[in-house]
Amino acid sequence: MRVLITGVDGYSGWALALHLLKRGHQVSGIDNFVTRARVAEVGGWSATPILTMRERMEALRREGLPELSFHEADLQDFASVHRILREEAPDAVVHLGEQRSAPYSMIDVHHAVTTQVENLTSTLHLLYALREVAPRAHLVKMGTMGEYGTPNVDIPEGFFEIEYRGRKDRLPFPRQAGSWYHWSKVFDSGDVMFASKIWGLAATDVMQGVIYGTRTPDIDQDALLTRFDFDEVWGTALNRFCVQAVLGLPLTPYGKGGQKRGFIALEDSVQSLTLALEHPADPGEYRVLNQFDEAYSVGELARLVVSEAKKRGLEATIQPTYNPRVEAEEHYYHPLHDKLRKLGYRSSRTLQQSLAGMLDDLERFKARLEARREVVMPRMDFRLPDNRARLEPGTRSDAAPGPGAKGPRPARAAR
Amino acid sequence: MRVLITGVDGYSGWALALHLLKRGHQVSGIDNFVTRARVAEVGGWSATPILTMRERMEALRREGLPELSFHEADLQDFASVHRILREEAPDAVVHLGEQRSAPYSMIDVHHAVTTQVENLTSTLHLLYALREVAPRAHLVKMGTMGEYGTPNVDIPEGFFEIEYRGRKDRLPFPRQAGSWYHWSKVFDSGDVMFASKIWGLAATDVMQGVIYGTRTPDIDQDALLTRFDFDEVWGTALNRFCVQAVLGLPLTPYGKGGQKRGFIALEDSVQSLTLALEHPADPGEYRVLNQFDEAYSVGELARLVVSEAKKRGLEATIQPTYNPRVEAEEHYYHPLHDKLRKLGYRSSRTLQQSLAGMLDDLERFKARLEARREVVMPRMDFRLPDNRARLEPGTRSDAAPGPGAKGPRPARAAR
Repeated sequence: MRVLITGVDGYSGWALALHLLKRGHQVSGIDNFVTRARVAEVGGWSATPILTMRERMEALRREGLPELSFHEADLQDFASVHRILREEAPDAVVHLGEQRSAPYSMIDVHHAVTTQVENLTSTLHLLYALREVAPRAHLVKMGTMGEYGTPNVDIPEGFFEIEYRGRKDRLPFPRQAGSWYHWSKVFDSGDVMFASKIWGLAATDVMQGVIYGTRTPDIDQDALLTRFDFDEVWGTALNRFCVQAVLGLPLTPYGKGGQKRGFIALEDSVQSLTLALEHPADPGEYRVLNQFDEAYSVGELARLVVSEAKKRGLEATIQPTYNPRVEAEEHYYHPLHDKLRKLGYRSSRTLQQSLAGMLDDLERFKARLEARREVVMPRMDFRLPDNRARLEPGTRSDAAPGPGAKGPRPARAAR
Repeated sequence: MRVLITGVDGYSGWALALHLLKRGHQVSGIDNFVTRARVAEVGGWSATPILTMRERMEALRREGLPELSFHEADLQDFASVHRILREEAPDAVVHLGEQRSAPYSMIDVHHAVTTQVENLTSTLHLLYALREVAPRAHLVKMGTMGEYGTPNVDIPEGFFEIEYRGRKDRLPFPRQAGSWYHWSKVFDSGDVMFASKIWGLAATDVMQGVIYGTRTPDIDQDALLTRFDFDEVWGTALNRFCVQAVLGLPLTPYGKGGQKRGFIALEDSVQSLTLALEHPADPGEYRVLNQFDEAYSVGELARLVVSEAKKRGLEATIQPTYNPRVEAEEHYYHPLHDKLRKLGYRSSRTLQQSLAGMLDDLERFKARLEARREVVMPRMDFRLPDNRARLEPGTRSDAAPGPGAKGPRPARAAR
């Protein structure tokens, strides 16, 4: 199968490319390297020492793997997207090339606009280019479980049958996202659903849980490592807890720590995307997959990391911190996720089983963590319209305000 | 009350400004005149001979009305939005300053991206500027009934209580829009709801039905006329039917004509927005109002216009045409709209009663309609990714294809 991956230089993108190449697919990729630049913008870098794309392609050659057809290009430029799709004539496109950080989108108005505009534009450009030059290709679009928020009912896979005032319909499940970034993914979902309807596009929209882990079985040498972010803006809670444990910093779950989310190992995310590719949606079908393995609360994650860290003699402690997000800290959470299992998905390991390998890698790269120690701890506040000063070097987490931050108070529930 | 209107040069914006000025409010406005340019871009112009903003303000002065504080500015420029909000210190902002045409958004990829990017950016800019310099101001945001689509159940005002798999919650009603433009309004709704939640913003999101009519009681002389579009891209179905009747062209409902929508007279839309302003949402409240008066099918509209036209001796006929939209042509449609009535809304007249006045005005300006006769009839097809050639001067409606248009077939329902 000819698969084009947008964002092929990223955390998921590179791991997926390796896997597809090893399975014998013909893989092409697009990236503009903006994530590397944006992680540097907030003072971070990858915990893993990743190679440049040129070096990565050289490593693939040394491994005897087929060539990755790489295009340095920006999805904001329609002419490039159109040209590359025509050249590559893919059977499927996996669209991972978006701004993927919720905190980044909450830095200030510029970052909010950049996130929503770039993500929407890249998706629209891909949809139009597919319609014009590859109308039968299958689009696999990366969304997020965060699109759904945390409703007090079960979360179906995209659509649900309801009865309301005595009549029935099958409707898209309502979305209640928690950051400008998460809303941008909701918006993408609307656009992909609409393109599928008007143009007969075959589309799979992946509601992805939080991915964790430093490697997959395909990453069997350091030259093939994928990036692993641990700063407050680009690192996920679990990845950052592991780094905090390695650095001897307290683990910082937000607030009460009862916020539950769905999690999936990088290896299993790659497995899921591969299953979606190898079992495509039909023309005109807009298929939504909830892609996660296990649900944990933030507090549970922190306790699991402490437990694993202590086995290795690390002095890990938990220090709950001011919650920069506006979210329920205790809530019902029960998303369904059956469709991938029906396609053959099998979990490769539990989250607990993955922690040892993650801590192994992070201890090995501890010098890189030490060098960016100050960006691990939380400094942002989603309630503030401008977080730039808080992200300046030297801003300590102690400086984070309590709930008395300036400005109007967080609101009561919408009505 | 100090009210700032974005898009004050537009069809609704100008009519609202006149009404608020006459009610003694202090009114300021922003516009970049882009709608005038974009109507010209597709070969149209306003049926009513509207003045420039400078001449409009002169007319206000002659009427002895208070000054409109006008800013020629672009909402895409955050610094301008921030500065104007600081200078005007409004109690309320009515946000009408968006790209408002569904067909315009479907012309090609550029118009799709422009629509979604501009609308999202202007709303985010306003939200951030409000948070920073006028956090207690009430935002009245213009959305559209089209955000909901045509589900097989009643449409509540924004939120509904549901039971799903044995549990209950109050959730945003699912949105199923029918153009990139309508989706942009769905996206705006998400952003406004989120800003209300994290910042305590008082917000009213107006799900506006299709507005019709050439004037309001405040428009009591030609110098105060608001614009009235009748080309395929910028004119609504009812407005275009009236123009077709005056020009002796057949009225062109799309397809079976069973598509039902909610309608409201311009005068009553102005009444509704005024009620929302004078009965604001609370801080942190995200209030959704379904703002329409009567629901009609497109076929019913056409028949009403023919009937009224015949009374005047006009030879009006109906010629159903290829439906350029991908939509159900027969469907259930029952949106609730009680909240505005509870605020005191009373319909000023029926749609049928408005038709005579509209036809009066349009016959008076018939020379302007004749001069742009070729842009009234439908030429676009929402299923095609590029409609530019169809909008070229000289393209006749007869050239519109039947359902055999090139490309993948319209899809089955999403699942």
